[in-house]
Amino acid sequence: MRDMGIAARAAARELARAGTDAKNRALRAMAAEIRARTAELLRANREDLERAKNEGRDGAFVDRLTLTPATLEQMAEGLEQIAALEDPIGKITGLARRPTGIEVGRMRVPLGVIGIIYESRPNVTADAAGLCLKAGNACILRGGSEALQSNQAIAACVRAGLRTAGLPEAAVQVVATADRAAVGHLITMNEYVDIIVPRGGKELIERLARESRIPMIKHLDGVCHVYLDDRADPEMAVRIADNAKTQRYGTCNTMETLLVAEGIAAKVLPLIGSIYTNKNVEMRGDEATRKLVKDAKPATEKDYYTEWLAPVVSIRVVKDLDEAIAHIAKYGSQHTDAIVTGDQARAERFLREVDSSSVIVNASTRFADGYEYGLGAEIGISTDKLHARGPVGLEGLTTQKYVVMGHGEVRN
Amino acid sequence: MRDMGIAARAAARELARAGTDAKNRALRAMAAEIRARTAELLRANREDLERAKNEGRDGAFVDRLTLTPATLEQMAEGLEQIAALEDPIGKITGLARRPTGIEVGRMRVPLGVIGIIYESRPNVTADAAGLCLKAGNACILRGGSEALQSNQAIAACVRAGLRTAGLPEAAVQVVATADRAAVGHLITMNEYVDIIVPRGGKELIERLARESRIPMIKHLDGVCHVYLDDRADPEMAVRIADNAKTQRYGTCNTMETLLVAEGIAAKVLPLIGSIYTNKNVEMRGDEATRKLVKDAKPATEKDYYTEWLAPVVSIRVVKDLDEAIAHIAKYGSQHTDAIVTGDQARAERFLREVDSSSVIVNASTRFADGYEYGLGAEIGISTDKLHARGPVGLEGLTTQKYVVMGHGEVRN
Repeated sequence: MRDMGIAARAAARELARAGTDAKNRALRAMAAEIRARTAELLRANREDLERAKNEGRDGAFVDRLTLTPATLEQMAEGLEQIAALEDPIGKITGLARRPTGIEVGRMRVPLGVIGIIYESRPNVTADAAGLCLKAGNACILRGGSEALQSNQAIAACVRAGLRTAGLPEAAVQVVATADRAAVGHLITMNEYVDIIVPRGGKELIERLARESRIPMIKHLDGVCHVYLDDRADPEMAVRIADNAKTQRYGTCNTMETLLVAEGIAAKVLPLIGSIYTNKNVEMRGDEATRKLVKDAKPATEKDYYTEWLAPVVSIRVVKDLDEAIAHIAKYGSQHTDAIVTGDQARAERFLREVDSSSVIVNASTRFADGYEYGLGAEIGISTDKLHARGPVGLEGLTTQKYVVMGHGEVRN
Repeated sequence: MRDMGIAARAAARELARAGTDAKNRALRAMAAEIRARTAELLRANREDLERAKNEGRDGAFVDRLTLTPATLEQMAEGLEQIAALEDPIGKITGLARRPTGIEVGRMRVPLGVIGIIYESRPNVTADAAGLCLKAGNACILRGGSEALQSNQAIAACVRAGLRTAGLPEAAVQVVATADRAAVGHLITMNEYVDIIVPRGGKELIERLARESRIPMIKHLDGVCHVYLDDRADPEMAVRIADNAKTQRYGTCNTMETLLVAEGIAAKVLPLIGSIYTNKNVEMRGDEATRKLVKDAKPATEKDYYTEWLAPVVSIRVVKDLDEAIAHIAKYGSQHTDAIVTGDQARAERFLREVDSSSVIVNASTRFADGYEYGLGAEIGISTDKLHARGPVGLEGLTTQKYVVMGHGEVRN
């Protein structure tokens, strides 16, 4: 691992100098390699799949591990999309002359070396490599050991792409061992690695955060709320409550708790309840909710803290905006929260006072996503407050340094 | 400490809602209290000073601890200057409509609760309180135990100012115990504290960084370089080499190593050497330097890694820009580095390739400072890459959240 760190550090220095053209050429060449080596990639993936099946892995696991010609094409297209994004590196902004004569501005630069630890989704290998490269960073990728053959085959395509563009192959290194100790080394080599991005379940991320000696961009819980204000358009309220919960159940930006102002509850909750019942969504509500929705079971205190990631929803009738904001502050995870209201002043209070990475007015929480926000791609959604918060695209993989242009000035 | 954390969290929620006027009123009232209570503050400070003398503290320590009518007036003026700065909070930037119809932008918001740990400079108490407040954050301040009486007296002024403006007194809490265990609690209460800013010596900061469970904005070494390129104006090269080293010896942005291109060494080094000799600056140089500067002693490998913070300078003659950049990458601390050159292409390479929080062309490294950069004030200089890098002003004490304005949009 130490040798990989040294090689990554040297490659990072070269990448920081690399022009946009070279980086884009590498990304397009990687895409071409993936298309050209489809048979080889599927063969490597089959080895992983067979082992997973022999080890009795469940269907969802095998699903995530599986590569198909269609997913490989998506991977190639993803790299081409990253090539088409604007290069964040090198721009100087805010240059202003100071009374002393010096001009001070900031230049966007790469972070350096990024370590990415993820579970058994081989598509992350190409995706993370592409994003790190475009932002001028070297990366060390450590995917789940169950995807080892697939990841190595993808890594070969990535290296070939780097070679084509004349960039150092060590710009993207994929850990080639299933040995779990490698992760422990990666998260403590602070001499060679500037930042760790863990992608995976909450338990993995919490453990890494405890043990890491390197700053992380990490993603923990998504206990997201939608608050239906009594000044909401009822039809819009129902539509958003439906979509935020049922459009996909397993994503971090899915609503887990629905808060309804008592002034609108009688009008919208019965209808929302029947929609959830029809879609087999289990409801857990307070007393006021259960009076209006007969299918709802009683909610416990713990339910309101729970990220269901499943067809289950917690519901609570609240007095007003204040009570909604207080509920979110107490039970929420500062990920994504939405208000549905026709009242501009209330919308503004919600935007300002709810301390979450995304605050949304009159739209579904499901929009909290790098693609939907126009970042082009995302490496994850940060629930941290420092550095990058919310969906993290290319900009989140960079930092800024101060640049000073003088004309011989010295300080008095 | 836990009670302070709970109170700070509640105060932070109120402060996030507070308007610019209330915050500025509080800052001005704090300044007025400091002026009105000058006698009381000096009395408290005398208690600290007597104890320090009895404990045999050295002159520099006593100096840093001493308050005078003049330093109290500076403290009051500093708070008024912070009141005059633009409020960073609440602005929404970059709002753009997406193809789905939602509008996505970012709003600048406070970080929440900031813990500040510092040594025995009581002026930091007012300064840090003012900056945190203006950025909408609650803070818990833990100054050196040797300044306990002074800090408590300043804290009383701060609380009175908060009361005048109708803001919660718990917005600024000063730890009122000399017990060192308080620091250990402060840096591990991640439920109540969002960020730690340590201000003090490198040993203190390294220890805190090892033990903290909370992200930090921290300041480590300042091994700063000036590279005199062979296309430099010789007169400018001498002036900057002089100022960067000798204008003040003990500051983090003071030059510690002078790199001189071999093509200009014979022209400028003898003159620079005689300036240093006249100012009693000890020189440690490589062989090429010692041929040109007879007063220079031999430099060891370790000298080039050293932050002297004293009238000592390491000097090395290098072949060219490449060797200078390589030297800085190996021995530097990524704080502040400068090039003196008349060649625009070389200046641009230096700006881009030197990975430091400030990179400077044709000016003294001593400009790397929040006031000089126009931030109005600074809480410190960050040598971290994530979040805030370089001088940290109000903006560094904030974060951004995504705001989404919809019109009933749901995701397909």
